[in-house]
Parts: sequence; structure tokens; C-alpha cells
Amino acid sequence: MNNSVETTQLVVPDFDTYLIEHSLHGAVAVEGGLELSWSDGMKNRVPNIWLREFSPDFGTFHSVTREQQMALTDIPRDLASSEISIGSDGFLQITWLPEGLSSRYHPGWLRTAVSESNNPLDILPARELWPCPVADPVFLDGAAIYAGDDDALRQWLEMLHRDGVGLLTGLPADPAVIPAIVERIGPVRPSNFGSIFEVESLPSANSNAYTAIALAVHSDLATREYVPGLQFLFCLENSATGGESLLVDGFAVARQLREESPEFFDVLSTLPIPFGTKDREFDHRFCAPILEHNAVGELTTVRHTYWLRTPMQGEFDTLKLFYAAYRRFQELANDPANQLRFRLEPGQLMAMDNRRLLHGRAAFDPQSGKRLLRGCYGEREELESRLRILYRQQREHQQHNG
Amino acid sequence: MNNSVETTQLVVPDFDTYLIEHSLHGAVAVEGGLELSWSDGMKNRVPNIWLREFSPDFGTFHSVTREQQMALTDIPRDLASSEISIGSDGFLQITWLPEGLSSRYHPGWLRTAVSESNNPLDILPARELWPCPVADPVFLDGAAIYAGDDDALRQWLEMLHRDGVGLLTGLPADPAVIPAIVERIGPVRPSNFGSIFEVESLPSANSNAYTAIALAVHSDLATREYVPGLQFLFCLENSATGGESLLVDGFAVARQLREESPEFFDVLSTLPIPFGTKDREFDHRFCAPILEHNAVGELTTVRHTYWLRTPMQGEFDTLKLFYAAYRRFQELANDPANQLRFRLEPGQLMAMDNRRLLHGRAAFDPQSGKRLLRGCYGEREELESRLRILYRQQREHQQHNG
Repeated sequence: MNNSVETTQLVVPDFDTYLIEHSLHGAVAVEGGLELSWSDGMKNRVPNIWLREFSPDFGTFHSVTREQQMALTDIPRDLASSEISIGSDGFLQITWLPEGLSSRYHPGWLRTAVSESNNPLDILPARELWPCPVADPVFLDGAAIYAGDDDALRQWLEMLHRDGVGLLTGLPADPAVIPAIVERIGPVRPSNFGSIFEVESLPSANSNAYTAIALAVHSDLATREYVPGLQFLFCLENSATGGESLLVDGFAVARQLREESPEFFDVLSTLPIPFGTKDREFDHRFCAPILEHNAVGELTTVRHTYWLRTPMQGEFDTLKLFYAAYRRFQELANDPANQLRFRLEPGQLMAMDNRRLLHGRAAFDPQSGKRLLRGCYGEREELESRLRILYRQQREHQQHNG
Repeated sequence: MNNSVETTQLVVPDFDTYLIEHSLHGAVAVEGGLELSWSDGMKNRVPNIWLREFSPDFGTFHSVTREQQMALTDIPRDLASSEISIGSDGFLQITWLPEGLSSRYHPGWLRTAVSESNNPLDILPARELWPCPVADPVFLDGAAIYAGDDDALRQWLEMLHRDGVGLLTGLPADPAVIPAIVERIGPVRPSNFGSIFEVESLPSANSNAYTAIALAVHSDLATREYVPGLQFLFCLENSATGGESLLVDGFAVARQLREESPEFFDVLSTLPIPFGTKDREFDHRFCAPILEHNAVGELTTVRHTYWLRTPMQGEFDTLKLFYAAYRRFQELANDPANQLRFRLEPGQLMAMDNRRLLHGRAAFDPQSGKRLLRGCYGEREELESRLRILYRQQREHQQHNG
């Protein structure tokens, strides 16, 4: 090859850096794989193809993208290891037959690869459900984030991940703030309301949000298979009488419901409920339980845009049980002991996990003044990605200085 | 009330129109609800609260948004029906106690509400898996869609929903085509590649897509909890040698795998596989089976950006079984009998269901000419919404002329 980069071995097959906290003591061939043993006594057995497909060389990985350029079908069926050794630098060295490829594996990368949890949330702050009665709202300094301070950004995102809400104050009441702040996390998720929407009382409203009526606490866009994971609402003006903001931890309410009535919790967790967008131009429909759990039984989503439910069919007794359970859920969600209630002032921003938190507002009088919020949706996974990158940059910084 | 609109009863509580194909013959109070009987012999029992919450009046529904302005907690606990009757116009009439509200239910709406399937896909064309060997690719007239023809749009979207792919030809090779055509369906879904991306060979590629290497068939963005449901690729230039497009029906391949080896199908349907974005600025991670099924056991997503898998942990024998199953899946997906292979020419657009279809390309020689595609992502649910609106407009048109 005539490109010098392409003749260099990668140290690790990604963009991350790895500490060597445990050294590799042994690597012994077993039927179809290798047994690895480590300085702290940990042992792992991994198939040869597992090691082969992550060989950090520029035939296996693209030198620029760091993505595999080989599929499983590009690896010989009669793959075998030979010349297994641990180098003086601690790297695992293998020659793969019949290709004759020599691969060298960084021990820090290898240790992570064989032992890191597959749970992608593990390095992020754990969720903490709200107490009842709720604590007072906490506002962080938005100006620092707006000015580009990564530490302030990280603190805000950690709060948002842990508590489901991150409130900022001290921002200029400028429409440009919302896209600028949100794009520090990741792309805005557009919807039938556009990318950035303005929440105000409008004569031709296509959503209850764009009226002056009270909105009991709810989540947004329950008609979508994938309910947006984040919502941002930024206050530009709030001189109208009324219109206080309400926030409730839907996961905490779900836990209260389960403690009070497992039967109610179960029907809301299992019975698919139909939702539909009410609009001349859009007709999204989706059926899912109010409380949605993932494959390992964790509650992931509270689906509760109550005004977008459509008539449902079912057994008379099942329907009656559902209505009783859903009424009780709403009573708990409307309980002031579960609600943060505050007035969002110009220059304040409310970020919330729209699959966990419920939000609402008191009615306001559009004759008494103007209430204008600017908002958009985003995704939890963009928040998670940004936090991982901020942590990666912290590690790089520490290693550089360490 | 002094607004005349607000004193008018709604006929139905949404934007749709309803035919009266079966008349309501009887409505009798039962404990906690009503028993309805219809001219064709159908009977249904519905709870009172079910009827009450869909009462088509402007206290229950907002006159402009057509969304409920009442939550369940706004309905009295001691709700009871009285004065149940069927009007000479066929409407169900009820007075609700203790409120004293008189509600009138359109019989066409009511029949739909009690009997329409909750499956939101029911009125859309059923999915048809591809035969093996595959048929030749079919191109529709893109110029008609670009010019605003709703019938041509509907035919294209029906094909896309049924077959997982919709190919268009005859479009101008103009960069403005892709947002214009896609926004006839719904919003573009942005990602770490932006909203609209250009697929060409780049020196600083952050994805294998932006190189000239061959890409075996795959889906995009497997690192996301919600893999984008649609992908659009529009050809602006294709004068380079090589670079033929490949398409495979991942659902058909999954069916072949199940017929051949239920054990292989099961491990790909149940074992969570870790994926991760390889990028300096993004670090999305998600774990899910290659073949993802919904709560009622239907295959919904093939998650197969093979170069975004990250090392996985697990029992040695489970890992070996997974690798054998995934290799076999890839062999079937790479089988020419399962692949459409064609050259996308300037002015041709490829729309595909990115959770069902796998796409790929042959390597091309960037020295021999230019290959430039312009693409973006969208969602299945926007396609479904647009088809429902097109069908609604057809019904309105027929009723207006009928």
C-alpha cells in the first residue's frame, strides 16, 4: 500500500482511549475459541470469530471511519488461531489461519470488550424517582451553557437524565436560544408541528397546546410509535394572568399506582390503548399501553396525551377496569403533592424527559397579556450520546494531563 | 355562550366523515353501560364513561382542535345515563346525569367506534414479502408526484408500504427534488449525518457510506432505539465504474432462516446485540435483537448495520450459536436470488423501509467518474399518516360527488 496510514495498525478499533487497569496473564486455545485470564483472577472464554472480527487492522476496520469493512461472511469458515502469545507490552498477539493475518489486541480494550456491561446506560447517572411531596424546583445557570461551557452542559444533562427535568435560568429572551442550546445536545426532532414550534393562543389551533385552556399534566405525541424522549420549552414572554407550569414524574406516579393497586398497574402496563392525531393534514395512529416496559421489564415510557385517545374496543369488564385504573392514575398525577408548580419567566428554559415526565399548565387569560413559549422535541438517545462524548473528552483530558 | 360556533353540536368528534352502513336498532341500559344492537345483528356493550368521554359537544371537545378538553377526572364518578333514545335521524341520544348534558352520537361514527379494529395498519395495503428469486425492479413515474399528483403519490406510497420499496424515475437531477418529494409524506428525520445528506466518497468520511468501498446489504442507524423507518436515496450523478445498488427484503430472509433453522431464527430474535456509533462527536449505543418483534409477535425491524456492532459478552456457547446464526442470515441476505441489483441513474429515487429492507452497493472507482446520491431518513408512521389522509380525501371527494 502506498498510503502510510493504511500500513499502520490501529491500537483500538474505535475512537475511545482505554486504561490498562488489569493485565492479561494467560491466553490458551480452547475448542473454537480462547480462554483469557487476567491479573485480578477474572477468566473469560471468547469464540475465535469474536476476536477475529474486532482485529484492529485496516483490512478489518476502515482507517478513517473506524467502522468494520468486513462482514461475518468475509471471514473464512475454517478460521483458526495460531502463535498465541502475550507481548512484552501486554498486548494479546494471534495469527489467524488460513488468512495469515497477525492481530494485536490492546489489553485495556480487550478487558473492556470482554467485561463491560452491554447496558448502554451504565456509565450515565441512574434515574432517581421524585419524592412525594416533591422538592422545590432547582434552576441551573443557562448563560454558562449558552456561552459554551462544557462542564455546565454536563451538569445540566446529568440532572436531566437523573431527574427527568433540567431547568435553566438567566438566558436572554431571544428566539435563537432554543435551537442553539438544543443543538449542543443533538438534532431537533421535527413533527407535524414543525421543528421549532411556538406555543401561544391561536385562533386556528391544531392542538390544545395552542389555545389558552388549562392542560392537565400529559406527555406529548402519544400517537407515535416512538414518543419523543425530550421536550424543551423556552419562555419568551409571560405577562398573561395564569399559565403556571406543572411537572410530574410519571415514573413515580406509576410506582405509587403499583403500590396501591397491582391490578390497576397491570392493566395500564399491558392493555394496548389506541391514540390518534386530530388534524386535517395528519392522521398518526398507534396502540400501546399507557405504561410501556422494555424487554427486561423496565418502565420506559408513560404514554399519556389524554386528548389524543380514540375509542377502543374490548370486553366490557376489561374496558371498565381500564377506565377505573386510568382515572386513578390521573388522580395521582393531578395530586399537588406530586406536582412541581412554578411560573416560567422570560429567559427560563424547561427541558424534560417526555417519556417519563408529564407536563401541564394552568389556564391563562390571553386578554391580560401575552404568553409565548418556543419549543422543540429531541431524543433521550441524543442526550445519552452527548453525555458519553463529554465523559470521553474528560477522560482524554485527564490522560493528557495525567 | 356568545360564540355561535360553541353552541353548535359537533356531528362527530374528529375530522373524518362516516357513512351510515348499518343503523342502530336498540340501546338499552345495563349495569355501568349500554348494550347497543345494530341492523345487521351485531351487539356491543360499552361502559357509560366510554360514551361520555366521546360526547361530541364543545364542552368535551375543543371546537377548533377537535381534541378532548376533558380528562377522565373531569367526569363525575357517579355518572349515569338517562333518557336513552334513538332519534328519527338514527342518532343515539342520551342525557348524562348528574351533569344534565344531552349527547347525540352519529350512528356511522358509533358503529366505527365500537367495531373498528384497533390495528392502525388495517386500512393500509398488507405487506407482501418478496419471492425468491426476486422479480425485476419496477419504477413508477416520479415526475407526476413531483408535479403534485395525489393519485401518483398514493400509488407510490402503497407500493412502498406493501413491498418495502418504491422506485421512481423521470425526476429532474436537481438537489431540490429530495426535500420536496419527501415533505409530501412528512417531516425528514435528522441524524448525526444532518437532515439531508450527500452520499459520495470523501477523504474525511465519518461513515463507511462516505467511502468508495463495497457495502454488503445492511440497514442504517442500528445504534438507535428507533431505527428510522424510511430511507430515501436520490441519484444526482453516477458516472463512476461500479456502484450498483442492491436491495433485499430482510423480512423474506428472516422467513427463510426460520424455515431452515428455527434455532438460528430464535437466537437472532431474542439475544440482545450491542451496537455503537463510531464517531468523534456521537456515541449512540443500543442493545436489541437483530430481528425485533412487537408485543403481538410480528417482526417489525431488522437491525443490521453490521459495521456498528460492538463486542458483546455472554456464555461461550450462546455466542457461538449467535455467530453461526448471524453468518447464515448474512449468507441468505447476500444470495443473488434474494437481491434486486440495478444501477441507479440520475433522476431516479429509491425509497425503502429501512426497518424491513436491507440495502447495499458494489464498490466503485472514484477515479473513473462521480457517484453522488442525496438522501434522508423518514418514518413509517409518516407514510401511514399520509396514506390515511389521502384515503380520507378520496372518501370526502366520493361523498361530495356521490
